[in-house]
Amino acid sequence: MGDSGRIPVGIVGASGYGGIQLVRLLLEHPNVEIVYVGGRSTVGKEFGEIYPHLAHRIKLTVEDVDTAVIGDRCEAVFLSLPNGLAYKMTPTLLEKGCKVLDLSADYRFANLSTYSQWYGVDRDDAAIASTAVYGLPELYRSRIAEAQLVGCPGCYPTASLLGIAPLLKQGLIVPETAIIDAKSGTSGGGRQPPKTNMLLAEADNSFSAYNVGGRHRHTPEIEQICSDLAGHEVLVQFTPHLIPMVRGILSTIYATMRDPGLVRDDLLTIYRAFYRACPWVRILPSSTYPQTKWASGTNLCYIGIEVDPRTSRVIVMSAIDNLLKGQAGQAVQCLNLMMGWDETLGLPELSFYP
Amino acid sequence: MGDSGRIPVGIVGASGYGGIQLVRLLLEHPNVEIVYVGGRSTVGKEFGEIYPHLAHRIKLTVEDVDTAVIGDRCEAVFLSLPNGLAYKMTPTLLEKGCKVLDLSADYRFANLSTYSQWYGVDRDDAAIASTAVYGLPELYRSRIAEAQLVGCPGCYPTASLLGIAPLLKQGLIVPETAIIDAKSGTSGGGRQPPKTNMLLAEADNSFSAYNVGGRHRHTPEIEQICSDLAGHEVLVQFTPHLIPMVRGILSTIYATMRDPGLVRDDLLTIYRAFYRACPWVRILPSSTYPQTKWASGTNLCYIGIEVDPRTSRVIVMSAIDNLLKGQAGQAVQCLNLMMGWDETLGLPELSFYP
Amino acid sequence: MGDSGRIPVGIVGASGYGGIQLVRLLLEHPNVEIVYVGGRSTVGKEFGEIYPHLAHRIKLTVEDVDTAVIGDRCEAVFLSLPNGLAYKMTPTLLEKGCKVLDLSADYRFANLSTYSQWYGVDRDDAAIASTAVYGLPELYRSRIAEAQLVGCPGCYPTASLLGIAPLLKQGLIVPETAIIDAKSGTSGGGRQPPKTNMLLAEADNSFSAYNVGGRHRHTPEIEQICSDLAGHEVLVQFTPHLIPMVRGILSTIYATMRDPGLVRDDLLTIYRAFYRACPWVRILPSSTYPQTKWASGTNLCYIGIEVDPRTSRVIVMSAIDNLLKGQAGQAVQCLNLMMGWDETLGLPELSFYP
Amino acid sequence: MGDSGRIPVGIVGASGYGGIQLVRLLLEHPNVEIVYVGGRSTVGKEFGEIYPHLAHRIKLTVEDVDTAVIGDRCEAVFLSLPNGLAYKMTPTLLEKGCKVLDLSADYRFANLSTYSQWYGVDRDDAAIASTAVYGLPELYRSRIAEAQLVGCPGCYPTASLLGIAPLLKQGLIVPETAIIDAKSGTSGGGRQPPKTNMLLAEADNSFSAYNVGGRHRHTPEIEQICSDLAGHEVLVQFTPHLIPMVRGILSTIYATMRDPGLVRDDLLTIYRAFYRACPWVRILPSSTYPQTKWASGTNLCYIGIEVDPRTSRVIVMSAIDNLLKGQAGQAVQCLNLMMGWDETLGLPELSFYP
Repeated sequence: MGDSGRIPVGIVGASGYGGIQLVRLLLEHPNVEIVYVGGRSTVGKEFGEIYPHLAHRIKLTVEDVDTAVIGDRCEAVFLSLPNGLAYKMTPTLLEKGCKVLDLSADYRFANLSTYSQWYGVDRDDAAIASTAVYGLPELYRSRIAEAQLVGCPGCYPTASLLGIAPLLKQGLIVPETAIIDAKSGTSGGGRQPPKTNMLLAEADNSFSAYNVGGRHRHTPEIEQICSDLAGHEVLVQFTPHLIPMVRGILSTIYATMRDPGLVRDDLLTIYRAFYRACPWVRILPSSTYPQTKWASGTNLCYIGIEVDPRTSRVIVMSAIDNLLKGQAGQAVQCLNLMMGWDETLGLPELSFYP
Repeated sequence: MGDSGRIPVGIVGASGYGGIQLVRLLLEHPNVEIVYVGGRSTVGKEFGEIYPHLAHRIKLTVEDVDTAVIGDRCEAVFLSLPNGLAYKMTPTLLEKGCKVLDLSADYRFANLSTYSQWYGVDRDDAAIASTAVYGLPELYRSRIAEAQLVGCPGCYPTASLLGIAPLLKQGLIVPETAIIDAKSGTSGGGRQPPKTNMLLAEADNSFSAYNVGGRHRHTPEIEQICSDLAGHEVLVQFTPHLIPMVRGILSTIYATMRDPGLVRDDLLTIYRAFYRACPWVRILPSSTYPQTKWASGTNLCYIGIEVDPRTSRVIVMSAIDNLLKGQAGQAVQCLNLMMGWDETLGLPELSFYP
Repeated sequence: MGDSGRIPVGIVGASGYGGIQLVRLLLEHPNVEIVYVGGRSTVGKEFGEIYPHLAHRIKLTVEDVDTAVIGDRCEAVFLSLPNGLAYKMTPTLLEKGCKVLDLSADYRFANLSTYSQWYGVDRDDAAIASTAVYGLPELYRSRIAEAQLVGCPGCYPTASLLGIAPLLKQGLIVPETAIIDAKSGTSGGGRQPPKTNMLLAEADNSFSAYNVGGRHRHTPEIEQICSDLAGHEVLVQFTPHLIPMVRGILSTIYATMRDPGLVRDDLLTIYRAFYRACPWVRILPSSTYPQTKWASGTNLCYIGIEVDPRTSRVIVMSAIDNLLKGQAGQAVQCLNLMMGWDETLGLPELSFYP
Repeated sequence: MGDSGRIPVGIVGASGYGGIQLVRLLLEHPNVEIVYVGGRSTVGKEFGEIYPHLAHRIKLTVEDVDTAVIGDRCEAVFLSLPNGLAYKMTPTLLEKGCKVLDLSADYRFANLSTYSQWYGVDRDDAAIASTAVYGLPELYRSRIAEAQLVGCPGCYPTASLLGIAPLLKQGLIVPETAIIDAKSGTSGGGRQPPKTNMLLAEADNSFSAYNVGGRHRHTPEIEQICSDLAGHEVLVQFTPHLIPMVRGILSTIYATMRDPGLVRDDLLTIYRAFYRACPWVRILPSSTYPQTKWASGTNLCYIGIEVDPRTSRVIVMSAIDNLLKGQAGQAVQCLNLMMGWDETLGLPELSFYP
């Protein structure tokens, strides 16, 4: 730690949506000091030029990405980059003793061939990749606490896995009946390069599905963890949709219960027990369903549960802010664990409403 | 027909969202003349006072609802009222020889006890109710053509049934696996009385489910027609969600195929054949999924189809404008059939984009 | 005219927002047949591939831009291109006898040096440019009717000039007090190349001004016509803002009245008289102010007028659909005049509400 | 102070938008403990029932409004009620020694006859009302610090006055040329009773002005403070508009400069000096204009300045979050001053973006 009593951290890819969330969160984190922000197209710019509303709080200039230098200056580094870049930078950072939190897909997969198949990148870094821990603290808290390298989950997997985990872990559902109908605000599409279908003029007042039929890259990620939870291979039906709004994901999860006699209150009890030690998951009362707005600007996941006795199905709805619990907030939560700090440190838990 | 060569029609409940759509559509319909608009809270007002943007095109005053008078003046009457009112007005209108198109739930159910159970109204008009035809032209065209009384479908049932009908009718799916995850813009909530959760300040930039677990009134309506299509009783899992936008419904429908060997192109062929004679249904090409914006301001239903060979599921997406094909447009389509006119007469088919 | 009894028209730049509006409008125009759609990045594509919701109505393929060929095939051509391209294509089209409607800024300026100064393009085509008529039918109807070349107005100038014209023409205001505070939906920013600040994630739920202090290119265009109306040079204060929505412009216009004794009803009378012969301008009743939604999907301009007796100012609000009356709709209105047809032919006048 | 070392505070009208902001802010305020929340229609309800997303943080039940009891329990009380109620409750609270912060219009006017004229309420409490201080800290910091009763400003006046104050105070403009064209998100319209024109279905994708011609109640409030700043009576032209979004106000202010030789940098220097001691006002760099999104979820006011040398006008844009700096945040800022705490205590200064 420096004189400030805060550890020095760096953010590579600071000007994208993931990066700006990290900057925003870490500026308010009591144990951390941002000492490095890196980028490519914005190198040499004051960060406050890119995001003028923050100019009064951050005086850093975007620097080139030199991993050796970053590794010397930082105790922890967040990589917020397009897929396929982090795995090239990480080895040097690890050697320098940095803790590395990667927000891309590079370190999410236990099996690199799955990664290669879905992301079109061939890698031969299995040794390092195998040390990475999947950064979903509610499921892998103790392993994250001991990791030097964390592969932070995707936004859809975060909402979906938190919603379905107790059902699979406790063997309450028939796994192959699981359907995850997920919906996301458009900020999930990122900032650069801007895409035509993400223009307000196109996306506003419209709603549609995409990558239907198991074709979204988050499918294998969800299935990997679901399989881990169930103890055997699980295929899920995952369909993403685009909501005409900025932030938020709602996953509506359907599955057939093994025991048709279970009622809503049984499941609420099970969920509350499952997440008892989890400060960032809130199980809603009976008949209350989550709104994404409640989670907006927080690191919380709100979960509502319903049972349809006619069809013996359980329906779980989980809501998060895709850029916080679904991305940057969760990365900071992981850092807290890796550093031995309180899991809630520096993270917002009260959304503004309306 | 009057001198104008147009038939005189009336609209009861003209100032709500259903009413204003009907006024808008009928003003451009070549064979129709609006001679009566009725309401309650707005009686005595010029219609153009309520909706100033139409003042240059409609010069009618909102009148009291006197069914005998309406019956004398109109050849066809649209009832766009809260549930539980239409069935009291309809007998007189039928006696007067009017064709009646009810946009509420009053005449949607073959079994009045289902209606009573879900809508909390006890009725003893089974004789008249049994003459009503369910106004979904793609499924009941010939019966609508001969009906004097049509119960127009709800918005969610329209999108959902058009999406699932070929699968059930051809026996392609295991009916009890059907899950309908539906999403609607907020105009479906109506205009009066305004509800807090429909305020822009609350609904904008948020997304949530409601009436989860088969608790929405459109569930029995969907199941009635699904059962009719399948030839035996079918329960479906129906979950509605609220999209932060004005118009549009997307229904995402999941079901397990009986024959796992079917591929996407097989299903596209089947759907195209099923809807060949249907000018208001468009089957999209392979890998193209509907956006609600495409249907906005039109009477069209766009359908996209996907198959997940890993899970043997078919996923159907259907998009409509909830206030047109989902409400007023479909009612006009029914009128066209009842009058022996072309089904497309006076109805918009080109949306503005973006 | 071809066998169809419709004149053959072409659209260059058909896949942008202006182009798609033109296609949409002309498909419903009774006297016109689209025989050519041209583009650059989309050459060779079916138009229905770019905009799948229109695939059932238009079977054309996007072609390369060869002005000689276009000129041979078309009787009228719409140029919907970035600024600085139309003036190179137009000479050939005019020679071939085509009527040309340019939607860019190339032919809006009587004084080419103003164009060069604001658009950074040096031209020596003053002879041809001087034959162009400014395509605002409410002010230049008879000249448009006789023109072979029309420079269609910008979106902001259309709303602003229709709002202020009667005041300047009748000498009712002190011209140098005129302030135009204009607000536009984001579709005005166009489709290609997509800009970061137009992403839904950035533009939604935000509002800001841009090009403040007379720095927007529509300033000289507005001032040119204002000067023409006043009979002497007029400078106006014009400030554009971005509204988080798709379509619509509202111009709020402030000016000090020469005669402080004028009351609202006087001005309403003057405006009604000024626009008596104008089917596309609607003067609203006393105390009614326009909403952009009323104009959405129509070629109408709604105008509301207020007077503040305390400050002796008149405040005029004018609302249009920026892509219709502000762009493609007005171009079709001009074509109607150029062809001697009714000014309203084929143009929508009823918006969907809500 | 209680054992917690925090002062006990109460909120009357806690379930409206102003109330929920206060609850949200005060829950994170280090020196304050909410001990009372009061309401009318929600009496007896757990606060977490009304706003389920806060249920994990606030365990209070909404209580009846008994000012004597409130006065005994609280050291400071926020009144977040419709106009015309606060002035009846305040005397008892003051007698009990409470500091009172009223968010309604009841204590904003030095001259009660102005209040009566605009709010239609006759009062004879001039003695008490005359002790109230207008709660705009940037202008009346020292008086607020000594006040027991503060009348918190309206949302539009806050944005508008912060934007225009330096110009008037320094005599830089001709006051009667001042035009304030203001735009607000719809949350400014409040929660109860819900109004038809605030429904998402009506307000979304539309934009319009209201209360045009000096007819909005914030006009006399703005003029009162402008007159105070100028040292003589000033009339301003104030026009509010509704933006299709939740939060945020942008005021665009036009005025003619007395000295046409002033350039942008002169004005930036003057503004920076004027607000040097003001932590909640940020003057943006040259050519940077504020976006409301930057201020969203913060207590900041961002100000951008432009000069049009052609017209000798200055154009100032000021952006705030209407519910924070425009309402609840400013009230907390006032409490900080009244208690002798740092002005920034417990208030958010970093917005989430996008």
